[in-house]
Amino acid sequence: MKHTIAVLVENHFGVLSRVSGLFSGRGFNIDSLAVGETEDPTVSRMTIVVKGDERVLEQVKKQLNKLIEVIKVIDLTEKPYVDRELLLIKVTVTPKMRSQIIEVAELLQAKTISVGPKSISFEIVGESTHIENSLNLLRPFGIREVVRTGRIAISKDDQSAQDEIENGER
Amino acid sequence: MKHTIAVLVENHFGVLSRVSGLFSGRGFNIDSLAVGETEDPTVSRMTIVVKGDERVLEQVKKQLNKLIEVIKVIDLTEKPYVDRELLLIKVTVTPKMRSQIIEVAELLQAKTISVGPKSISFEIVGESTHIENSLNLLRPFGIREVVRTGRIAISKDDQSAQDEIENGER
Repeated sequence: MKHTIAVLVENHFGVLSRVSGLFSGRGFNIDSLAVGETEDPTVSRMTIVVKGDERVLEQVKKQLNKLIEVIKVIDLTEKPYVDRELLLIKVTVTPKMRSQIIEVAELLQAKTISVGPKSISFEIVGESTHIENSLNLLRPFGIREVVRTGRIAISKDDQSAQDEIENGER
Repeated sequence: MKHTIAVLVENHFGVLSRVSGLFSGRGFNIDSLAVGETEDPTVSRMTIVVKGDERVLEQVKKQLNKLIEVIKVIDLTEKPYVDRELLLIKVTVTPKMRSQIIEVAELLQAKTISVGPKSISFEIVGESTHIENSLNLLRPFGIREVVRTGRIAISKDDQSAQDEIENGER
């Protein structure tokens, strides 16, 4: 089973390296990892998708909580959440295939971001399944380049991650 | 000056940790880092935005090329490219403010992904400046949660990263 975990960390040099080292050192199977700033410039938020059973997940959470730079570990799998990923994709285009590619792009709600003599680049956002479908539908035209962000996720409830820290749930 | 670097790496455990450790160990100022799969399941692509002068950048590239898991380092700053970032943001909403928030969201081309009794969550995609503008425009309503992917980038030319490796530019 896949688990989506949000980790609030102090925005220090070396935190990313320590967190990713923790996973690689223990052989945890990371599916994706994304990291970005939060509203508080001293705090970054990592979204980690990890494969494994409950026991593995508990180990991961315990190890994360041991790191002093880790402010909070939120297991999003426990509550309703929305996840999204961003894909930039460059597809080969020939005059003959152009209208077909445009049709597929419209179906996928892809946005054109760059057009070259032999290629078109699109921006596509969605859940992982939408990203995978997009890759599958565009593959027959010839994919030149794929850049993905990794998955990020936000809970559907009104609470903020900050509330949870203040309520002493840490 | 900010530089955007794409690094193709072998999709092994520990690569992320080694690459980020290289940066933190040398005090390089990473602005953002994103990592995702490519079309080749054995290869991941990291997009790193790093601050510094030419000399710093040359050092970074040299160090990256020394790592055996690094397949190719592409300095996107040297050619035309498009960059994008994905933001998920949860904003406080009151009945009084709802229409104002919806107006601002439309201006920002934000997509509603979740609605709660006291909050709305949006998905916003764009260049870094658009993401910063979005945060600034939504901040007065009250931001509950911010999740960002970090920036990813794709070159505007027709060439693929794979072509460059095959042409012996490694």
